Amino acid sequence: MSQEQPPFERPGAMVEIVRLELPPPDLKDNTGDFDRLARALEKRGYFPLRVEYSLLDGAVRRIRSQGYRLAAVLGYDRFCWKLLEVLLPEYAGPVLGVAVDLGTTGISFQLVDFNGRETPDRMSVPNPQIRLGEDILTRILHARGKENLLELQRLLIEIFNRTIREMLDRRGWDPGCVYALGVAGNTAMSHFFLGLDPSGICKEPYIPSANRFPVCRGAELGLVVHPEALVTVFPNVGAYFGGDLIAGILASGMNRSEHVQILVDVGTNAEVVLGNRDWMLACAGAAGPALEGGAIERGMMALPGAIDRVRIDPSTLEPSWHVLGEGKPAGICGSGVVDLVAEMFAAGILTVQGKIDLSAGAPGIIETPECRAYELVRPEESADGRGIAVSEIDIGIFLKSKAAMYTILSVMIRKVGLDFGDIERFFVAGTFGNHIDPGMAVRIGMLPDLPLETYCGLGNSSLRGAEMLLRDRSLAEETERVCRLITYVELNVSAELLNEFSGALFLPHTDPRLFPSVKPYAGRRTNG
Amino acid sequence: MSQEQPPFERPGAMVEIVRLELPPPDLKDNTGDFDRLARALEKRGYFPLRVEYSLLDGAVRRIRSQGYRLAAVLGYDRFCWKLLEVLLPEYAGPVLGVAVDLGTTGISFQLVDFNGRETPDRMSVPNPQIRLGEDILTRILHARGKENLLELQRLLIEIFNRTIREMLDRRGWDPGCVYALGVAGNTAMSHFFLGLDPSGICKEPYIPSANRFPVCRGAELGLVVHPEALVTVFPNVGAYFGGDLIAGILASGMNRSEHVQILVDVGTNAEVVLGNRDWMLACAGAAGPALEGGAIERGMMALPGAIDRVRIDPSTLEPSWHVLGEGKPAGICGSGVVDLVAEMFAAGILTVQGKIDLSAGAPGIIETPECRAYELVRPEESADGRGIAVSEIDIGIFLKSKAAMYTILSVMIRKVGLDFGDIERFFVAGTFGNHIDPGMAVRIGMLPDLPLETYCGLGNSSLRGAEMLLRDRSLAEETERVCRLITYVELNVSAELLNEFSGALFLPHTDPRLFPSVKPYAGRRTNG
Repeated sequence: MSQEQPPFERPGAMVEIVRLELPPPDLKDNTGDFDRLARALEKRGYFPLRVEYSLLDGAVRRIRSQGYRLAAVLGYDRFCWKLLEVLLPEYAGPVLGVAVDLGTTGISFQLVDFNGRETPDRMSVPNPQIRLGEDILTRILHARGKENLLELQRLLIEIFNRTIREMLDRRGWDPGCVYALGVAGNTAMSHFFLGLDPSGICKEPYIPSANRFPVCRGAELGLVVHPEALVTVFPNVGAYFGGDLIAGILASGMNRSEHVQILVDVGTNAEVVLGNRDWMLACAGAAGPALEGGAIERGMMALPGAIDRVRIDPSTLEPSWHVLGEGKPAGICGSGVVDLVAEMFAAGILTVQGKIDLSAGAPGIIETPECRAYELVRPEESADGRGIAVSEIDIGIFLKSKAAMYTILSVMIRKVGLDFGDIERFFVAGTFGNHIDPGMAVRIGMLPDLPLETYCGLGNSSLRGAEMLLRDRSLAEETERVCRLITYVELNVSAELLNEFSGALFLPHTDPRLFPSVKPYAGRRTNG
Repeated sequence: MSQEQPPFERPGAMVEIVRLELPPPDLKDNTGDFDRLARALEKRGYFPLRVEYSLLDGAVRRIRSQGYRLAAVLGYDRFCWKLLEVLLPEYAGPVLGVAVDLGTTGISFQLVDFNGRETPDRMSVPNPQIRLGEDILTRILHARGKENLLELQRLLIEIFNRTIREMLDRRGWDPGCVYALGVAGNTAMSHFFLGLDPSGICKEPYIPSANRFPVCRGAELGLVVHPEALVTVFPNVGAYFGGDLIAGILASGMNRSEHVQILVDVGTNAEVVLGNRDWMLACAGAAGPALEGGAIERGMMALPGAIDRVRIDPSTLEPSWHVLGEGKPAGICGSGVVDLVAEMFAAGILTVQGKIDLSAGAPGIIETPECRAYELVRPEESADGRGIAVSEIDIGIFLKSKAAMYTILSVMIRKVGLDFGDIERFFVAGTFGNHIDPGMAVRIGMLPDLPLETYCGLGNSSLRGAEMLLRDRSLAEETERVCRLITYVELNVSAELLNEFSGALFLPHTDPRLFPSVKPYAGRRTNG
């Protein structure tokens, strides 16, 4: 047995390529050919080495036909190394991994080449399950019959296969050179992907079939990748705290920080993790829809056509905006709404209660039978010829979301006896986090009033975490450790919580001492 | 993580049934259902616990439908425990293992019940590959094309399935309740069983595809047993020293002895292992055919109809014999030949050189054109109406075999600087070993002249070793240790060896000091 370090202490990727020239067999050394390879690999620290039955015969035949010169593709499987393929020693082609963010709405893929090549290739596609249910709950109900569950799974496998093929075709590569997948999804999506009964996720007491999933082989799942490819699905810590967030924690690095940090991921739910390398408190709440651009009449996802930034000139009160992609605006996404509300508030168009104040004299105020609205985009400027307006009703919905977010944050902070000043770093993940302007979010009282450099947008943190796992196998162990570290708290409806929430419904808050940097509206500044 | 002993240090079988009542999930403990099971099992020392992707969903659904009461069937896989099935807690049916001696000529199966039931059921069938080649070499040549190799494999899988079904049908059991197989065969047979290229086995430098084999799942091999059943094939230490012998060593227990012992297995080859718990020297030589009943004209395997014991009355010179099974004799098996030669020699019918001595005046001597022969069974007494005679040519062939056996033994003993007196125990395995009379074998100089109580017949030692592995999982580790312990020696043709062999061609030997207990023939003892 090797005296070298155990593999999990040697840094390196989930897949390694080891080039070897084995001593050819002779009468003095009649070790079997697979054992000859295993011996050489174990000497280099790849111990214990295993091989699937399905690969063994082909591997030995290749070792022999190549005259005992080879490049062994090895995969790391937590308890052992696995021989995944035997290639020619001079093989310089791709040896790939695919990181996947398996989202409810969209799925993102990122290539990784373990053979040294740069592969910035990334591709995102809509989740094809949408036609069986927009939201997770509908899909979980659809999956009641095993047939339907397998249909949901098949849709995912098919889109994986199609997308991986398309990404590789561009470079003339074969899907068989994909040897590892790292898949991060919420708990329900992970269940769909593995064909596991999701029924426990949506009903009390909210129990997943499994928190940790077995490492599967590509062939078992029907993927077009190498049949022996190791498919790692991130573990979850409960129905409402999925592998996507675990991956997000890895991406933030808060699991290795000695200082207290916060990670907020705004998707369908708002998920919050508070902690450091020694402890973590997690919580999920229904703060999301309005923040992600849903619920509001002209709201939309942060896709081309969405207004993602808004400014209102404090002197002229003329609005300006930025549209994602090219072309005219079709709606407004979460970060656009944050900006809009913050700017309307700063310009005196919105009151502390979130009502439109006619006395500001701003252009674009519309009176509807129900309430007032602010028309940001005139009909002739928009993609569909309809003006893009945000009503007081929309703003009311939005304020509930932002209040929920702030409430979750402050309740959690108090739970551990800290206050916001103790937060060293505040990560905002997700599409929302990528676009949001922290200054604006502070101004409306959605995020706490911390120095702006504390805030850090993470982008697609679950995709990044999945990619990190492929590039650094020590994170497989670390992932399990993070799961054990997390204490998941249910925010039960209590008087304290309702009180907190009510205060946070205002702009920025009923207690202005919580937001010292947000100056109250002091009247219109004019050019003169 | 559990602080209990690692599983391989806790004695027990390869498969265990653990009855559990899991705490049902509630809002305070929302652990996933599989992880709930894993946690309970890991607390009892079954750590780490793994599950195949193919089983996970079904297992969780069963745990739920049974209200968190279950009997978990667990299999030991060297590096981890594997969940093999979830049963009702009150399940009292069979949880079986099948030990298999995978021989070139015949295959023997032995049931083991891990659920406490006595199962002495054993069944032997001919190896169906015989129709593609009587001997291993023919089959290896046949297996050159992958198609043919798979055909050889398929024949084995089919006979496994048929036999297991038949054994279980008798008791009304389903093959799905077989959760483990332990298979011991020579190196070529193990390759056929796993569909591995055997071509390296029969040509210099005699390299198997693998010495150690992956633990396979029943479904992977197409077996009718439980799809998750763990199939362990014993490792080999080279082309000529197979898993059947490793299993034989386990059966003898010499791997745990502090005294030096010898194990001899006479099959197509004679295989010899010399050593104790700290070292082992192994050797295989072509001593076999005549000893197993082959090569001799009226020779046959030790099957019904074979004469397995012979006595010649020293005063009347009248022979008597014992036939296996019921009915008339059809031939003579190895132990019968040993007895016959020993008794003819003691009665003065055979000379030291192995020639028939007419002066003894024995009945039944026949003169043929080539040489003399001794008719043991008269035509009217035999099954086919032909007399059963052994000629001087037959005896010459037999003497070469017994000389080879003795030569191997004495060369090995000398190699380690010992002499036969240092041997504490002498195991004789195989059908031959089961029937042979050590006193007779000593008298003809086939086995060394040791106290008769030193000799110990082991019967089907490879089947017994395979059964022991199923009943005691610590032997999985021990098997690997034994493999590392063994030094395999090639007996190269040398002057010394030829000299030794020539001396051993006589009865009992040219050097009578080697056989002090064998008294020279001192003339016929008459009744008067």
